[in-house]
Amino acid sequence: MRETREAIEWNGHTLSLLDQRRLPGAVKYIELDDARAVAQAISDMVVRGAPAIGIAAAYGAAMSVARHLGDELSSPDWRERVAADLEVLARARPTAVNLVWAVRRMEARIDAAKQEWALAAREEAECIHAEDIAANRTMGEIGAAFIEGPCGVLTHCNAGALATGGYGTALGVVRSAYRDGRLCQVFADETRPWLQGARLTAWELERDGIPVQLLADGAASYAMRQGKVQWVVVGADRVARNGDVANKIGTYGLAVSARYHGVKFMVVAPTSTIDLGIAHGDAIPIEVRPDAELFKLGDQLVAAEGVGAWNPVFDVTPAALVDVLVTERGAIERPDECTIAAVMNS
Amino acid sequence: MRETREAIEWNGHTLSLLDQRRLPGAVKYIELDDARAVAQAISDMVVRGAPAIGIAAAYGAAMSVARHLGDELSSPDWRERVAADLEVLARARPTAVNLVWAVRRMEARIDAAKQEWALAAREEAECIHAEDIAANRTMGEIGAAFIEGPCGVLTHCNAGALATGGYGTALGVVRSAYRDGRLCQVFADETRPWLQGARLTAWELERDGIPVQLLADGAASYAMRQGKVQWVVVGADRVARNGDVANKIGTYGLAVSARYHGVKFMVVAPTSTIDLGIAHGDAIPIEVRPDAELFKLGDQLVAAEGVGAWNPVFDVTPAALVDVLVTERGAIERPDECTIAAVMNS
Repeated sequence: MRETREAIEWNGHTLSLLDQRRLPGAVKYIELDDARAVAQAISDMVVRGAPAIGIAAAYGAAMSVARHLGDELSSPDWRERVAADLEVLARARPTAVNLVWAVRRMEARIDAAKQEWALAAREEAECIHAEDIAANRTMGEIGAAFIEGPCGVLTHCNAGALATGGYGTALGVVRSAYRDGRLCQVFADETRPWLQGARLTAWELERDGIPVQLLADGAASYAMRQGKVQWVVVGADRVARNGDVANKIGTYGLAVSARYHGVKFMVVAPTSTIDLGIAHGDAIPIEVRPDAELFKLGDQLVAAEGVGAWNPVFDVTPAALVDVLVTERGAIERPDECTIAAVMNS
Repeated sequence: MRETREAIEWNGHTLSLLDQRRLPGAVKYIELDDARAVAQAISDMVVRGAPAIGIAAAYGAAMSVARHLGDELSSPDWRERVAADLEVLARARPTAVNLVWAVRRMEARIDAAKQEWALAAREEAECIHAEDIAANRTMGEIGAAFIEGPCGVLTHCNAGALATGGYGTALGVVRSAYRDGRLCQVFADETRPWLQGARLTAWELERDGIPVQLLADGAASYAMRQGKVQWVVVGADRVARNGDVANKIGTYGLAVSARYHGVKFMVVAPTSTIDLGIAHGDAIPIEVRPDAELFKLGDQLVAAEGVGAWNPVFDVTPAALVDVLVTERGAIERPDECTIAAVMNS
């Protein structure tokens, strides 16, 4: 077993991001010392996964304070400069609420500090990072307890160590369930168009020695029909107040199919992913990425010139199709506005 | 509008197959004058699509007769040699019944001929080819009449001119419906792992000037939820006696999702695809292709070494999820053993 490398490494001053676009072929880190560069890395998907981009943005904010405060004598307007950086970070991608959540939390901490702003910002970012890792461990235990095994688990996209501060949300549950003998086989959807399942989830699980079979996204329903899968376990990019879940495109179809087959459907997301400011899933902004992501594979053109495309990279699963939403504050069975409010206010 | 090139060209003696593995990047034909080479081309997916591989096998059989009969003085056992070729052709791929159907039909015609076997075989193969084109035109009209438009149609894989003698099964319906103003937008699943939707369906429709948007397989359910799709229209590789349908992996999940969303589900298949010898879908042999098809894109490795895969390339949709099965002998609404038998015996 080889340890999965960390997606985010912080040395107290600069940020190293594992370039997830190049996995599994190359394990390369990109060094960043600037908030704008962090925002660009998030937009470009060097780092992805809702919790991970929140953490990266927090470190981006800390670097912004250090940089602009360092210029204080020449730049008495450091706070405005930081504010501008924070807005760029918050807008780097639209769907995952963790990004805005982390930026607002950094903003509040900076505003609350009377001095030593750079230290305060650094501590807050490190705290966000550490809390996320702890939340993943907790959610892993809570979620695994639902799984009566040994059984087959299907996951979509990558909600693993690479998508978080470490351990993973959906894959945290997978890791804990496997350790407890509740899980005998993971099926990983390859997850077009970015192939996070093939490139990231299969890589993580193989390195952990957890049995994983890759399948085409279209094969998931057939796997359920054949009785191979007892649970679908996924992460989330944003959960609305009523429990509707935005997650990687393809998640919704899995939820429909899971319900049809009597397969259980679990969403694993820290409370930083729950957006009480959004009433329901239809109000969640869904990122549509360039058509070209569907036209090329590496350097190879796979679609005819002149063809159009529709490339939403997230979809919305209604709460009614979610059997359990696992947060670090507890599991919410049959999530709805009341049960979510109860956990968020606990 | 540019005409789609024919997948299968026959000059009376040799067969030219459009190498569909290279589309849309290159339009190249492979010349074949030998049954074994045709079988290999079918196995290797130079030509694919249930009706098309039946037609190719028929021409392979005709070339086998011409070759071995030409050796008659030296090979009085020409009929055994042809029989051996026919078995290789029939086994080139397991799921599409058209292959076996075409080979058995060629066999019967050869056996029925008292002389001029090569001419008889050539005529039979040409007849199979011509009948398929005519069936597609007929099915196009029958299927299009069900579509009340203008509406959105989703299709999966390629059941077009490239998959047949010409015009297409599912895409025949799409072509007729578009001509009649019943259809405003086609959504083409890219169809992993071979990307027949991206490479072939989008190419065909773009050349015909029919509006097509490509989408990741995982986006189909979300497109249905958003009201973009009123019909799913697909082909078939084998239909069992009770109406269960084997088709490209991913079809079953579309059928489940279509039913959930109240979207209609149409299967378009000539009677040569209906196998009365198979009672239900669970008895249809499902081809599982090499894991490696999921690991590489072109020359690029996209999955970690050591990962396993599950790569069935067809699935089975139960008849209960099919709203209408269109054949050249008529449409069968809510297909089952009785309604199918009625059409097959008509």
